[in-house]
Amino acid sequence: MKQVDIDAVLADVRAALAAGDWDRAVALVEALRPPDQADVFGELPPAEQDVLLPRLDLEDSADILEELEEEEAAEVALRLKAVDLARILDEMEPDEAADLLRDIPPEQAARALAVMEEADEVRPLLIHADDTAGGLMTPAEILLHKNMTAEGAIAYLRAIAPQSETVYYLFVVDEENRLVGVVSLRQLVIAPAPTRVAEIMDPDVIHVRADVDQEEAARLMSRYDLLALPVVDDKDHLLGLITHDDLVEVLEEEATEDIYRLGGVPEEHPVDVPIPTALRARLPWLVLNLGTAMASATVLSLFESTIARVAVLAAFFPVVAGVSGSAGTQTLTVIVRGLALGELEPKDGLRALARELLIGITNGLAVGSLIASIALVWKGTPMLGAVVGLATLLNMIGAGIAGVLVPLGMLVLKIDPALASPILVTTTTDTLGYLIYLGLATLVLGRLV
Amino acid sequence: MKQVDIDAVLADVRAALAAGDWDRAVALVEALRPPDQADVFGELPPAEQDVLLPRLDLEDSADILEELEEEEAAEVALRLKAVDLARILDEMEPDEAADLLRDIPPEQAARALAVMEEADEVRPLLIHADDTAGGLMTPAEILLHKNMTAEGAIAYLRAIAPQSETVYYLFVVDEENRLVGVVSLRQLVIAPAPTRVAEIMDPDVIHVRADVDQEEAARLMSRYDLLALPVVDDKDHLLGLITHDDLVEVLEEEATEDIYRLGGVPEEHPVDVPIPTALRARLPWLVLNLGTAMASATVLSLFESTIARVAVLAAFFPVVAGVSGSAGTQTLTVIVRGLALGELEPKDGLRALARELLIGITNGLAVGSLIASIALVWKGTPMLGAVVGLATLLNMIGAGIAGVLVPLGMLVLKIDPALASPILVTTTTDTLGYLIYLGLATLVLGRLV
Repeated sequence: MKQVDIDAVLADVRAALAAGDWDRAVALVEALRPPDQADVFGELPPAEQDVLLPRLDLEDSADILEELEEEEAAEVALRLKAVDLARILDEMEPDEAADLLRDIPPEQAARALAVMEEADEVRPLLIHADDTAGGLMTPAEILLHKNMTAEGAIAYLRAIAPQSETVYYLFVVDEENRLVGVVSLRQLVIAPAPTRVAEIMDPDVIHVRADVDQEEAARLMSRYDLLALPVVDDKDHLLGLITHDDLVEVLEEEATEDIYRLGGVPEEHPVDVPIPTALRARLPWLVLNLGTAMASATVLSLFESTIARVAVLAAFFPVVAGVSGSAGTQTLTVIVRGLALGELEPKDGLRALARELLIGITNGLAVGSLIASIALVWKGTPMLGAVVGLATLLNMIGAGIAGVLVPLGMLVLKIDPALASPILVTTTTDTLGYLIYLGLATLVLGRLV
Repeated sequence: MKQVDIDAVLADVRAALAAGDWDRAVALVEALRPPDQADVFGELPPAEQDVLLPRLDLEDSADILEELEEEEAAEVALRLKAVDLARILDEMEPDEAADLLRDIPPEQAARALAVMEEADEVRPLLIHADDTAGGLMTPAEILLHKNMTAEGAIAYLRAIAPQSETVYYLFVVDEENRLVGVVSLRQLVIAPAPTRVAEIMDPDVIHVRADVDQEEAARLMSRYDLLALPVVDDKDHLLGLITHDDLVEVLEEEATEDIYRLGGVPEEHPVDVPIPTALRARLPWLVLNLGTAMASATVLSLFESTIARVAVLAAFFPVVAGVSGSAGTQTLTVIVRGLALGELEPKDGLRALARELLIGITNGLAVGSLIASIALVWKGTPMLGAVVGLATLLNMIGAGIAGVLVPLGMLVLKIDPALASPILVTTTTDTLGYLIYLGLATLVLGRLV
């Protein structure tokens, strides 16, 4: 495969547009695969996008709007007339068209839908929330009826000569469009011609309800290696299919969401989002962090006279708080990812707590005695070493407990554990660390000065 | 779909095994889908696994070994006689069999290979490293020759009646088994019968070299929505295919790896790994953290006399260091994920730095003035407020710079940015924070007491 040099093509396209050579610009873009087309198109200034888009094939325009980042696609769509947008939407996969319509103002979406030829396919998709199974699905192109014969089913397939990959799973419905089975192309081919589909199909089909969270749908597809997952309503009527490309997107989206949230960026945003958006995503979280840092500040303030008398204590603040903070983050990471992958369930909480306590004690003993030795050698005060080491041990045990209980508690409260846990765990290890360390130091103050 | 209650089935299976009712235990397991079979099997004690496994169909045994976690599968395999293992391996997908053989001691693998019927299919896969494209691929079940006719190709397909999903991509090779094109089943069906495959195939096939990292192969499949990706050697000979189930596995594996590494757990391990393994994964990282915390401790130690004179300064340590640490982690998260998703490339480094500097200054002004006000109101010393606020602003700018430069630097040094960056960024924000804060405080010491 030739690796596409996006920047080089982009420069060529812009040069062609500047020279008014629209045919060349169009030819350059149409020679690319859709994701590369979208990369080039997305880098063009809006004015150049608006010159290029109406000159592309409708199919290429549809590919580009499907492949652009959601916000970028919405911005392009916003600048189109309703009738031009409708013609492009007609060429898009129905689920992608629905996604785009959800991302633009309702009045504009309504105007485009009014003139779309495929409106009937797209409209039913719009009632489902973006991040549910219903929001991911697309209408099934082909459905078999359970009373068809194998021969009839094959003739029907040949007549449609379907384009999309959904053909490789053939779902079977009854008279009332209820999902009743699944059959493979291979089973159809090898069955005697007059066999009824109902006799060869597998009636135990993995499926989801439309209102199920997209993460759950993705987990099912990933667990059972499914290329397509049927979506039904509460009476088992087949509404649509989630296809494998959606699975990959959801997996990446959910992983990114978790990584962002664990890193203190509550709202996912691409690297090159406009700066005001980035500020809005990050500043509130920093202010929240400031709030929790004030808890530690209050503890430190309580012990001001101890610190004034034994200023050397301050040198070990980053050690006591930092190392336990890292231990808490380790535990939290393992627990949050375990919950996300379905490896860990709330009912396993006690076992997880016991494990992490044991790990906390063992690591605490190891790191605590190392810190105690460092303090002794560096500052020459055995009692300081004992205080620092013991505080680290106790704080690491606290870190293990917090690392398990906080994310599980969030889950019980129906808050995403990846979102709120890191800040709470760090606050615990910080505050608790200073409290234990300075509390111990105050108790033995006479032997420290 | 009936949700399977793993714990209930597990209890039934164990009861049946305890009662010596092997037929019932086998029937219970065989009624499940492979991932559920593996979940139940994996929870059994080794002795019960060893009783059950030889009584299952070879196909079910193969499914279970494919679906178990790698370490679990290796443990089960280790307890099998070479000839029994070989019979199960013969039933596994060749890429899965190769994975398992890589995970057991070489002598045992050699003994099993010696008696395997499918050894010729599996052996060539073993020369590739586990985390490369070659390590993921499986031999192509069906290949078309470019000189076949459309009619001949369809007759050939019907004769093989292949089971796997790899049929939906038909790759085309020349006389020397070089990859020359791809054709869809649909193109074959609609082409006139005598048309040569070479005339209807698409010669521009996306493919990878066997030694390419699995992450790169997964990115290609995800970007171009591929169900199968051909793997070739350096002379374009077709070696095998990577299929969509591998894609999903790699995506989850790589996301987990990044999440673990960002959370300070360098080696990924499942939630319920044995405790000694968890300790080995986590303790060295804590000791490394201790080492970097000593850098901050050294800075604090330098300013001991300042702290002794103005102990109130200590109260704001967690504020100055903590909030900037969070800002640095935010920047780092966005950059590391952008690099992993391919949204950001090293050449965009300067632009990213400029963005994050601007964000750091803006957030720094906002948070810095907030902190200054809090310090003023709480402690009633305007100069303390000024020192704390200014230190926060400067440290947040430093955090933005470190959050960009550290991961990009790691990339240049060919170290995974997710692995080493968090600890370095936090060390920077901590050490720099204390240095700026206490440095400023020492400069204006007379006006603080």
